[in-house]
Order: sequence, then C-alpha cells, then structure tokens
Amino acid sequence: MEVDSTNFFQQLPVPDKFTEKNDKICNFVSKHNEIGNKVVLVTSGGTTVPLESRTVRYMDNFSQGTRGSASAENFLQHGYAVIFLYRNRSLEPYSRHFSRLNLLDMLEFANDNTSAQSIVVQQEYEDKVKTMLLKYKEVMKSGHLLFIDFTTLNEYLHLLRASALSLQQIGHSAMLYLAAAVSDFYIPKDQMPEHKIQSADGPLHVSLQLVPKLLGPLVKEWAPDAFVISFKLETDKNLLIKKAEEALKKYHHQLVIANVLETRKQAVVIVSKDSIQTISLSKEQLLQGIEIEEHIVTELISRHNKMMNEK
Amino acid sequence: MEVDSTNFFQQLPVPDKFTEKNDKICNFVSKHNEIGNKVVLVTSGGTTVPLESRTVRYMDNFSQGTRGSASAENFLQHGYAVIFLYRNRSLEPYSRHFSRLNLLDMLEFANDNTSAQSIVVQQEYEDKVKTMLLKYKEVMKSGHLLFIDFTTLNEYLHLLRASALSLQQIGHSAMLYLAAAVSDFYIPKDQMPEHKIQSADGPLHVSLQLVPKLLGPLVKEWAPDAFVISFKLETDKNLLIKKAEEALKKYHHQLVIANVLETRKQAVVIVSKDSIQTISLSKEQLLQGIEIEEHIVTELISRHNKMMNEK
Repeated sequence: MEVDSTNFFQQLPVPDKFTEKNDKICNFVSKHNEIGNKVVLVTSGGTTVPLESRTVRYMDNFSQGTRGSASAENFLQHGYAVIFLYRNRSLEPYSRHFSRLNLLDMLEFANDNTSAQSIVVQQEYEDKVKTMLLKYKEVMKSGHLLFIDFTTLNEYLHLLRASALSLQQIGHSAMLYLAAAVSDFYIPKDQMPEHKIQSADGPLHVSLQLVPKLLGPLVKEWAPDAFVISFKLETDKNLLIKKAEEALKKYHHQLVIANVLETRKQAVVIVSKDSIQTISLSKEQLLQGIEIEEHIVTELISRHNKMMNEK
Repeated sequence: MEVDSTNFFQQLPVPDKFTEKNDKICNFVSKHNEIGNKVVLVTSGGTTVPLESRTVRYMDNFSQGTRGSASAENFLQHGYAVIFLYRNRSLEPYSRHFSRLNLLDMLEFANDNTSAQSIVVQQEYEDKVKTMLLKYKEVMKSGHLLFIDFTTLNEYLHLLRASALSLQQIGHSAMLYLAAAVSDFYIPKDQMPEHKIQSADGPLHVSLQLVPKLLGPLVKEWAPDAFVISFKLETDKNLLIKKAEEALKKYHHQLVIANVLETRKQAVVIVSKDSIQTISLSKEQLLQGIEIEEHIVTELISRHNKMMNEK
C-alpha cells in the first residue's frame, strides 16, 4: 500500500520548538554544503507513544542510544558533519563513556596551596576524560556536530522528515543512518483519552494503530539521492535476513543493517540488494573495548564513496 | 478485596541481583538501628512494564524522579538515613542539579604552568558544583545514603517489600515515602509473548491486568509501625482529594500527598484522616529556586516526630 505521507502528517500535531530545530538543521546542512562536506543524519534512541494527552503513561522502545552515539563518533572521526537526532536523555557522543558514573563521584577538590580552590576530575578518570574532552571540544569548535533531541514518536517523525528534506539539497553527499528504535504503533490524537486512565476501571486494554512505513516516501520523495541505511532489530534470528531483504525490495534504499537483540554488540549483518556481509567482533576484540560501530561505519563510508563515484 | 500478596509475589520472578540488594538494605537498616537513627525509604522514578519477555517494547510511567531525589536531599539534611530506591538513570540526590548539562560542557583543561595538566570544572559551574560536592561527599562518608536501583515494575515490587520488611525491625523510627510513579497495570508472565511483536500482524491490542494494591499488606503486615506516606498524582484536580481520602480509609496509613500533574512543583495537598493541609510556593519563591520538597519534608518530619512521641 502506498503511503500518503502528506495526509498522515496533517493529523500529527506540530511539536514544540519545531521551527527552531528545523532552522538549525537547514542552516547546518547549508553551511556544510558550501564547504563541500558530506553530511550524515544519525538517529538514535527510542521514541515514546503517549497513552493519554496529559501524559502520565506511555509506551517506549528499548534503546539507550549506544549504536547511534558510538556511530556518530566514528562518522565525525572520518570528517562527516553529523546531525545527531537523538532521544532526550539517551546516550550522546563522547559523554556516553561516562554515563554509568555519577558526576560527583568523578570530581574532587584540588589539593593545591593556592587560595582559589578548584574542582578537578579524579586521577582515576583523568585519562579517559582527557581523551574525550579533546575530541568533543574539537568537534564542537569545528561545527561538525549538531544535537537535535526528541522524545515522542510525533516529534521524531516531524524532525526526520525535516532533516531528510533539508538533506535533499546535497544529493549524493548525504547519508541517512536510521538507528533509532522507532515505534511501529501509535494512538491517533482523536482516540486518546485526555486524562490519566483510572485503575478503578479495571484491566487496561490499549489499541494502537500501525504507523505507516515512512521509509517509502523518505527514499522516493524526501531525499531521493541520499545513501540510506535502515536497521532491523529482532529477537528471533530466523526472521532477520528475510525481513531485511523484504524491506530493501519494498523501499528501494541502499542497505539494511540487521541485528539480534542479544548479540547486537558483537555481530551485525549488512544486507544490500546484491550482497550479505557479516561484521563481527572476536572475544579478544570485545575484551579490548573495540566497538563494532567502528567497523560498521568504515564499511558504510567505503560504500557511500563508491556510490558517489559511480554517479 | 483483600490482597493475598504472598500468592501474587509467587508468580513474580525474583529479579537479578535481588539477594545482593536485599543484603545491602538489611545491613543499612541494622547499622542505623544500632546508632538510633531514623530511616526513611524514598522511592523515586517510574517503573517499566515489558510487553515482551525478550523486551523491545515496554510501558512506562512519566517521572524523572525530581520529587524523590529532591526529597531525599532534605531528609538527609535533617539527619535521616535514606534508602533511595530509584529508577535506573532517573535523577539522583545532588547530581540531579547538573542533569541537564553535558558533562563535557562543564569541564576544561586547567590553565596552569605545571607539567601535570589537569581537568577542572569551568568557573561558571564551580560554585554550584562545590556546594553539591561538599554535601554529597559528607553524606557518602557518613554512610547515611544507600542507592538501590530498579527498572521494571517487578524489580520495584520485590525491592519495596524487602525494604519494608527490613524496616519492620526499627518500628516507629521508620518512614516510607512512596514517591515513585508505579504502574497500576502489568502483564502476567504466562500472558507475555516471548519475541518482539510483529508489526505485520496489524494494529496492536495490549491487555494489562491490574496490579493488586500492595499498600494494604505493606501497612498491615510488612511494616505495621512505620510512618507511611503515599502519593496520588492526577491530571483532573476534581478527583484528587476524594481519591486521597478513599486511599486512607482503605489502607489505614498516615498520609497521602495529593498533586496535579501540571502544578506538582508549586502545590501539594497533605491529606490525613483528620486534616487537609495545602503547601504551596509563591511565584517569588519559585523564582528564587526554592523547592516545594523542602517544605513537604519539614512538615512530614514534624508529624513523624509527633507520632513517635505519642507511642
């Protein structure tokens, strides 16, 4: 079934701060277009689906944003400009390395004799913080990284379309790396109760409608020349390759990265129209702290370059 | 309907690391019992309800943990020992003041002439970090604060019961301040699909069962001598006081703190068997950064002391 995305978007309320965020995206893309940089949109983290308009309860998709934030670092390393479209409070490039720590456990009062007492990072964390701080400051100074956050599915969809439309102007130099865990289901505005659902009413039955697959209009209309990578996460590995191939046939984009929930940090399968390539890490590599996103991104950039050269 | 909590718990799987966490709680309570400290259990943040056993999707309750983490600071300030039972990655006492900041935006390389380059907190944040760091280090050194985290409803319920049972030994010196946003609904293990729900199957219909109200057994059996405060959050203010009074009549605990979603940071109503007291902040107080939890906690401690003296 063809998706009439214009109709679908008309019933989605325009989210708060949309204009401001859209302006930031357009300016960022224009600037890097002028310089001649390649630009990648990295989406990251899960989307929420509110069950009430004054929201107390919502559905969510499991994702801390590890794949997206780690990949963003690697794209930046290779000179790409990155629009990082991420779930509010999910992992961010560079700072993600300290996300399990309490900030105050990392700090201490400086032990010096000067009168101005300053607060320093404890020695135990200093090397790692130093490495990341250098990279982060450099990237922010060069203007290669744009943070755009979302929380709800509605916000995500509006910002995805805005980013893709903006990337249209740079044609083949754009990549869309759609790693966010986006809900397949939503509750249309007119079917949502206003107030908190009352538990006294007994067991809860929630009915959610299917979100139309927007990868269709994204590839066909919004950013037809871009290099587009979607993700397929399953818990049942027997479904994986079949579902990835079906998606490519249906939406005509370049690649699907297929992964299984439990092993997603060790192995992925990159599926294209003509090939299936497995990327995996050995136990030794995992122990050394090597991240699979480094290998995924290197492979994608080589394929993106190939596509750009062929056009 | 009386809740047979033993039966209900038998069908809830024992969560990971439960024994380890339970031991920590018991040791903490015993230690403070010996010293003669009052102990409060502060619950904070929302609980998740997985929709699949290999979880990709879940339901969640809106809460960042502001009420719980701010209240914990105030209880510590007044000498209470605090078991902080909180949703993983929600706000924590002291560090919560920096939760909207990217760690790396707060740090810079020290501008000194020594060879050992160190990383310091930027001057703009130094005062606030200093204040919080002092309080945090003092509290951690004195052993007055125990962090116990949960994610799912199941983990929360097991840890709530374990904490209440452990607090039984200190009788009236215990307070339970149940500020977490706990799901009223869950999916029994035998009704949960193993694998990710497939969107190709069409619209999603989720049926959730009511979680039995465990405040009943908590007050009657688990910690019968403790001072117990529950929370009632509604979006419809016309329901609020009525629902608070119903809860007190049903569960026979000491207080319900009633609040409306949109105004919860400005006003709450403390409802007891005999009285209704509104606590609210003026616009000036809000602008000065005064938090309503300071007033709530002061009032609760005074009522807790009164109860202890009467027994």
